[in-house]
Amino acid sequence: MTGPVYAKMAVIGCGLIGSSVIHAARAAGAVGEVSVADASAAVRERIAALGFADQVTGDAAEAVRGADLVVLAVPVMAMAEAAREAAPALKPGATITDVGSVKAAVGEALAKALPESCFVVPGHPIAGTEQSGPDAGFAELFQNRWVILTPQPRTDTPYQDAVERLTEFWTALGSNVELMDDRHHDLVLAVTSHLPHLIAYNIVGTAADLEGVTRGEVMKYSAGGFRDFTRIAASDPTMWRDVFLSNKDAVLEVLGRFTEDLQALSRAIRWGEGDKLFDLFSRTREIRRGIIAAGQESAEPNFGRDHRPPGET
Amino acid sequence: MTGPVYAKMAVIGCGLIGSSVIHAARAAGAVGEVSVADASAAVRERIAALGFADQVTGDAAEAVRGADLVVLAVPVMAMAEAAREAAPALKPGATITDVGSVKAAVGEALAKALPESCFVVPGHPIAGTEQSGPDAGFAELFQNRWVILTPQPRTDTPYQDAVERLTEFWTALGSNVELMDDRHHDLVLAVTSHLPHLIAYNIVGTAADLEGVTRGEVMKYSAGGFRDFTRIAASDPTMWRDVFLSNKDAVLEVLGRFTEDLQALSRAIRWGEGDKLFDLFSRTREIRRGIIAAGQESAEPNFGRDHRPPGET
Repeated sequence: MTGPVYAKMAVIGCGLIGSSVIHAARAAGAVGEVSVADASAAVRERIAALGFADQVTGDAAEAVRGADLVVLAVPVMAMAEAAREAAPALKPGATITDVGSVKAAVGEALAKALPESCFVVPGHPIAGTEQSGPDAGFAELFQNRWVILTPQPRTDTPYQDAVERLTEFWTALGSNVELMDDRHHDLVLAVTSHLPHLIAYNIVGTAADLEGVTRGEVMKYSAGGFRDFTRIAASDPTMWRDVFLSNKDAVLEVLGRFTEDLQALSRAIRWGEGDKLFDLFSRTREIRRGIIAAGQESAEPNFGRDHRPPGET
Repeated sequence: MTGPVYAKMAVIGCGLIGSSVIHAARAAGAVGEVSVADASAAVRERIAALGFADQVTGDAAEAVRGADLVVLAVPVMAMAEAAREAAPALKPGATITDVGSVKAAVGEALAKALPESCFVVPGHPIAGTEQSGPDAGFAELFQNRWVILTPQPRTDTPYQDAVERLTEFWTALGSNVELMDDRHHDLVLAVTSHLPHLIAYNIVGTAADLEGVTRGEVMKYSAGGFRDFTRIAASDPTMWRDVFLSNKDAVLEVLGRFTEDLQALSRAIRWGEGDKLFDLFSRTREIRRGIIAAGQESAEPNFGRDHRPPGET
């Protein structure tokens, strides 16, 4: 790289993802100046103390002034408002992207809120932890992770160039970039992310309220599988509320399929159909092997590294 | 410790747990001699090559001859048969335990299969990984993990002494031992382990067969939460089939509650009831904090240690 991909980047909303984008972009030398806007005074204070931004403000318009790249990193349903606030101060020719887990609804909202003089390229880095806030960010979060961009149906060269430059940016941060139709993104993520989170939230809720088993017991004996669900179910409540409300159709569709399959499984247990259970449990093993083969996961168990074996006997 | 807790230990069935018990017991100096029986010739060959047993045989009776402790580490529904095979050769006064994830059914089967001259103390170490086989075992598996023993309702001193000695054994291996009623164990584990595994198997099965999303896409974008489920759903199929069939009532009970709660959640999404979603997602976070406070999990995110952040944004 001969110089930064963007001379100035503005990040609106500085939680886990926003702060990680800044750390990663700085580490890669992909940006020059960094300004940050966050609605929370407490968050702004932390950012100032952490010292990773050149400018910290509560005003999105102030932050985006002169920026070549604007990254909206607020919960999905707050995107439209953040875009509206930033719109009047946007530099013509700036690229505006986001990191939301839902793309059709966000893409529509951004197209509506932003002027045609800038380039709207919605995006979604498939990376994260269950931690929240500006202290949770780290530069390696996007390494070897996929970033899905869902460009608008524009064929003009300046827009294509903007998409290419944003691709270059994420690549510099260590990610693999894929372009996708936004509705297809929302269906794929409903399966690989939204449904898993919904199920995790649900099972932790069920366990908390069960008669006959105390919460203390649930926590104490959580190493048998439950603990992994509690980690997922510790993710940011606002962010996930917004995801489910904004991707309602796809989530309800895959949830319907999940429930149907679960009823068949329940029936197989009730009637002692061991072969059916064995067949499913063998098939799911193959999927895991596929993920390991695709390089999305290590084949090594993780006990040597964090002493937290996931399964049980 | 002045010497080994048991002079000779026999392990029947040598997969992940069986081999880990041997490694851990040897590392702790808790046993003298170790003999192993496994029905699979391929497994016996691996054990011989790995060299962690003094004797390897296909015959359970041969293995248990002269043993002070017999550990049955076969799938839950194979316990009765293993016990019957071992019974004629058991040394009077020997302690027989197991490592099965279901205790009422196993306890009944063992009581029926074994002579009164030995001490049957069913047990369950709540530890494991998704790996299987004799190569998967390691000495640290039981460190800081709970082992639940579900003793028979015997009040005679020799039996009490046997329970105490087995407690001493597991403690030497690094575990915390708890005594519990077997039916209560089965309900607690239905929540903290059996239901999580069932749900994980189910969601991976659903994702594999979904129209509109290819398996390749599911694997590729699995970092958004799905991947954690595939790890759990890669656990041994035979073992888990047996667990669900042997703990049917408790599993169906908690599954019924889970389904009921999931329907309410589905309804809240359909009707856009964001407050209900937010309330649940905040409550589940508290459970996670409880697990961390109980020392069953580190508060640290695991990215620094294994580069495998679990959640996503």
